[in-house]
Amino acid sequence: MQEKATEEQIDAVIDAMIEAGVGVHRTTGASQTILAGVGPTASLDLSKFELLAGVLHVHRISSPYKLAGRGFRPEGTVVEFSNGVTVGGQQVAVMAGPCSIESREQMFETAKRVKAAGGTFLRGGAFKPRSSPYAFQGMGIPGLELMYEAARENGLMAVSEVMEISQIEPMLPYVDLFQVGARNMQNFNLLRELGMVRKPVLLKRGMAATIEEMLLSSEYILSGGNYDVILCERGIRTYETATRNTMDISAIPVVHKLSHLPIVGDPSHGTGRRDMVASMARAAVAAGADAIIVEVHPNADKAASDAAQTLYLEQFEELMGQLRVIATAVGRTL
Amino acid sequence: MQEKATEEQIDAVIDAMIEAGVGVHRTTGASQTILAGVGPTASLDLSKFELLAGVLHVHRISSPYKLAGRGFRPEGTVVEFSNGVTVGGQQVAVMAGPCSIESREQMFETAKRVKAAGGTFLRGGAFKPRSSPYAFQGMGIPGLELMYEAARENGLMAVSEVMEISQIEPMLPYVDLFQVGARNMQNFNLLRELGMVRKPVLLKRGMAATIEEMLLSSEYILSGGNYDVILCERGIRTYETATRNTMDISAIPVVHKLSHLPIVGDPSHGTGRRDMVASMARAAVAAGADAIIVEVHPNADKAASDAAQTLYLEQFEELMGQLRVIATAVGRTL
Amino acid sequence: MQEKATEEQIDAVIDAMIEAGVGVHRTTGASQTILAGVGPTASLDLSKFELLAGVLHVHRISSPYKLAGRGFRPEGTVVEFSNGVTVGGQQVAVMAGPCSIESREQMFETAKRVKAAGGTFLRGGAFKPRSSPYAFQGMGIPGLELMYEAARENGLMAVSEVMEISQIEPMLPYVDLFQVGARNMQNFNLLRELGMVRKPVLLKRGMAATIEEMLLSSEYILSGGNYDVILCERGIRTYETATRNTMDISAIPVVHKLSHLPIVGDPSHGTGRRDMVASMARAAVAAGADAIIVEVHPNADKAASDAAQTLYLEQFEELMGQLRVIATAVGRTL
Amino acid sequence: MQEKATEEQIDAVIDAMIEAGVGVHRTTGASQTILAGVGPTASLDLSKFELLAGVLHVHRISSPYKLAGRGFRPEGTVVEFSNGVTVGGQQVAVMAGPCSIESREQMFETAKRVKAAGGTFLRGGAFKPRSSPYAFQGMGIPGLELMYEAARENGLMAVSEVMEISQIEPMLPYVDLFQVGARNMQNFNLLRELGMVRKPVLLKRGMAATIEEMLLSSEYILSGGNYDVILCERGIRTYETATRNTMDISAIPVVHKLSHLPIVGDPSHGTGRRDMVASMARAAVAAGADAIIVEVHPNADKAASDAAQTLYLEQFEELMGQLRVIATAVGRTL
Repeated sequence: MQEKATEEQIDAVIDAMIEAGVGVHRTTGASQTILAGVGPTASLDLSKFELLAGVLHVHRISSPYKLAGRGFRPEGTVVEFSNGVTVGGQQVAVMAGPCSIESREQMFETAKRVKAAGGTFLRGGAFKPRSSPYAFQGMGIPGLELMYEAARENGLMAVSEVMEISQIEPMLPYVDLFQVGARNMQNFNLLRELGMVRKPVLLKRGMAATIEEMLLSSEYILSGGNYDVILCERGIRTYETATRNTMDISAIPVVHKLSHLPIVGDPSHGTGRRDMVASMARAAVAAGADAIIVEVHPNADKAASDAAQTLYLEQFEELMGQLRVIATAVGRTL
Repeated sequence: MQEKATEEQIDAVIDAMIEAGVGVHRTTGASQTILAGVGPTASLDLSKFELLAGVLHVHRISSPYKLAGRGFRPEGTVVEFSNGVTVGGQQVAVMAGPCSIESREQMFETAKRVKAAGGTFLRGGAFKPRSSPYAFQGMGIPGLELMYEAARENGLMAVSEVMEISQIEPMLPYVDLFQVGARNMQNFNLLRELGMVRKPVLLKRGMAATIEEMLLSSEYILSGGNYDVILCERGIRTYETATRNTMDISAIPVVHKLSHLPIVGDPSHGTGRRDMVASMARAAVAAGADAIIVEVHPNADKAASDAAQTLYLEQFEELMGQLRVIATAVGRTL
Repeated sequence: MQEKATEEQIDAVIDAMIEAGVGVHRTTGASQTILAGVGPTASLDLSKFELLAGVLHVHRISSPYKLAGRGFRPEGTVVEFSNGVTVGGQQVAVMAGPCSIESREQMFETAKRVKAAGGTFLRGGAFKPRSSPYAFQGMGIPGLELMYEAARENGLMAVSEVMEISQIEPMLPYVDLFQVGARNMQNFNLLRELGMVRKPVLLKRGMAATIEEMLLSSEYILSGGNYDVILCERGIRTYETATRNTMDISAIPVVHKLSHLPIVGDPSHGTGRRDMVASMARAAVAAGADAIIVEVHPNADKAASDAAQTLYLEQFEELMGQLRVIATAVGRTL
Repeated sequence: MQEKATEEQIDAVIDAMIEAGVGVHRTTGASQTILAGVGPTASLDLSKFELLAGVLHVHRISSPYKLAGRGFRPEGTVVEFSNGVTVGGQQVAVMAGPCSIESREQMFETAKRVKAAGGTFLRGGAFKPRSSPYAFQGMGIPGLELMYEAARENGLMAVSEVMEISQIEPMLPYVDLFQVGARNMQNFNLLRELGMVRKPVLLKRGMAATIEEMLLSSEYILSGGNYDVILCERGIRTYETATRNTMDISAIPVVHKLSHLPIVGDPSHGTGRRDMVASMARAAVAAGADAIIVEVHPNADKAASDAAQTLYLEQFEELMGQLRVIATAVGRTL
């Protein structure tokens, strides 16, 4: 309460709190009164209290998410895949592949090289969200079939982005991990549907989402009973224009502190520039990322999308060697 | 090109530009060479040029949107509605109503008071995107029926948010203006479908979208043949925490300069605080907004959602008086 | 405290609070414990408590500033000047002039026109902070003499920026209002010295300063006994690049709520573009600004600095007519 | 130029460019005309061209800094110190010490442990910029004497922050590296004076400064003839509140690309939280930082300032072991 709050104002706030279903504890200091509400506050809209007469600030003490909180699974979540790979455990997983699936040759060449270098997942987009209606929009399900075949032939898991509810069903046979893109992090209907699916979900942080909002979004999936959620830091929007986004490496230790879910670093979208990708991939693993996801292409300069941030396969192979050393520094393996 | 770029590097960039289908003009200065590309560049991914050897910067000179640009309709777009109201013309339109549709009484009481005060649109949400899965999610179509009836009885137009493609069809009979929320500004499949509809669309700026991205999103709707698009500034995400968002009032003159589309100010979401709403509504009209959209409720403190930013009807009536004076200062009427 | 905090952890935090000199009140709920500290906390570094074992969040309830808070002078501060003009009262003051003082003709021509249009202050920079060491750095004290003479001859008050402590003394005879620029908002030594001066200070918000930080900076001046502080919103840094800065119009009502100090809107720096200045000046007055400060120049295109955001005198005169109407809408005069 | 620009408009812009002293090259495409200016543009205010009739965009092609650009010293700058340590070379330097100098015991204990763990610089603040006038402001020169003695006795270099011009002279005997804090990154008078000094300068990135602005600020020092400038990334201000700042790790590879100057990572200010410091220190070295600077204290919980982000000495020693491994992954030593 404000320093000049009257007894009437204090009583009115107490009444409002009781009406909202919370117990009230009052602390009266020399200059100020503090009212603490205790009870089921997760679904409470706190801002309405802020405007009551005499109120100075309203703070939420308990976190607004439940299932995503560290306390729900203090030992941490380890997501297991059919090829024995895990995300969230002792091993640092590596997901690599082109931004867009373009052809059979592209996917098989990529899969072979990714596997040989030590990668564990093959990525590739079949449905592409593009800012401009005039840009390439993806190959769709036929592309996914190609990717899945290339992944399986090389012992890799397949990960691809789902953009809307109607795509879930047709994608199911061809992906091992559903990716939700940054633009859909708050597409709550889609998240709720993915909560009903029994396949892991890779949830990317929105372009300007807080870590708390990312955890709240994961709650939509978790509350449907799908506990295999993997988060992903892919760069946030800031005032700096030297890079496409500012990759928030500190989100990695923050998520590990607040939540039991694993977190992946995406240095390709995090920087938008091929010549920064390796630096930021190394930084992500050094900061404790459970996996990295990078764009690679056998002919990176001609990639149908995101060419500028796509690594050459040779660069990827060199990077893998560096990551192997860094993983040991944080007590892990690649 | 960089100051030290070699002739080989320059030639390689010229070749890449020609391959991409643009004509090349070369300017050679004492210390630097500039290459200008001319041609159909709207769908070109410029970033790939940035990584070629010897390249310093790549700039897009022409704007990436076509139909949304001021040049497409220099006289400006005026969207007309069946009750004779326009948005984008000489009149400043006023859209008001509760965040969520809750009951018949609420909607009829609100509609009567909004109309009496000079409002022209009734707003109300039936499908609510909520950050937390545990919050109220809206009344759905039955709510829209209530709103539509209340609007028609009072000579108001009805505006409500559409969250996904499957809702368009059932909503059609009950809305005069489809609202696309901030979280869906880049839900491109939804935008494309709305381009097929023959009803106006109110497109809200994403929480961290640039003005250029908002115009690109409008291009998805316009390119489907639906030219009745109205943009909306509703606050952007910044480092400042004193308000929920920072309402970017300057987006209003910027949009008027870059585009022919009308733009609406939303001071309720722009601030998130009832005690700031009137100030920012006045500011929006003073800066040239074509309409404002505000949350009002007959019993604002008990609103099921957004209570903290909802005006009392008395506050709304007082605000209307102030806006009437300000409109004259910018050569308009309310 | 966290839900799983042990009694030992709670006791350790209580001990740390007592050691820091605050009284402790404990609230124990079904799942969580809250500890409220009461006492002289303004100078306390709260973050150290955040890292104690078992602590979930630490919030400051009382505001960290004292003299700048609304509670210190609920009726608001009105700064009075020798020509009878006030800032913070019923009248909206207008400060206008070139970015840089360049010549006698320029200043006298400007002063005459500003006065005729209804302006009350003449502004002009003699010491210029420039991002590049190769740009024009200002005329210094001889320039101030020119400005002061032009101001006095036209019944205007003179306002100019002070960049460092050594400039205060020589500037004293020539300015009625010391301006502290955005880059110096946290130059605490300079602020402390200005607290010793008995002339009003115009404190501009830093490029990325929160409103709370601006109020804390004003506290440095107020605590020296100089109560004539006027704040200024001049645009903040955001991700949007369509304008040089994003002018945070909502800072105006926020400051009026939190503090008793007057606040001025600077639409020239707020937008960086001449064609946006009038829109944003109108918005600032509509939102309740106590004054506006704008850059004008008899020959705006040739201005030695900030040419792009400087109004032609004809534009300024037209703007003054609009502001007069808007002022009446908020119960004020120009 | 805009698509609809007339010949008269184009001619007017060409005239303005010539008057500004640049040569003009014109490219005329099917729909648009491009005017390229060639000449001494570093000191040119481009924004004035943006407002000429018919102009669409103005872009600066050459960088606005000269001496700080990579091209000036393609091989990179290596700053050498009297104890043989270098910053910018093969070795990764480590600077550690308390936020504030508090006592003889504190500094000697810290210096001994820092040296033993492999550190090369002792840091400590004697003049402290504090947001609140009520917080501890530092020990001044007597504190620096303590630090210098402790550093020399242990073979370490001394680094401390200089806040204003008058402090340079008295600090000279006691520091090997002048630190310019984030709040002073654009205190151009101070930077110019440091350009006259013949001691290295550690220039911290401002709280909301772009990388380009940091390089422009370094230009103030370089243009005075002091080429021993070291840059520092210490976190930028973003919308995310989970950490005090968002440490922009990608600034490290960006600076290495654009400039020849070394860059240091400051994970203490970058995160503001002790439990994130080690993660971000590892990330900085993995991304290629030339040094790290961290806050350590023999009794971290009782530090007079920045306690929450200060490492225990044991944590520092463990971190050094990890950094040694990571340095090898990027071909360096610690």
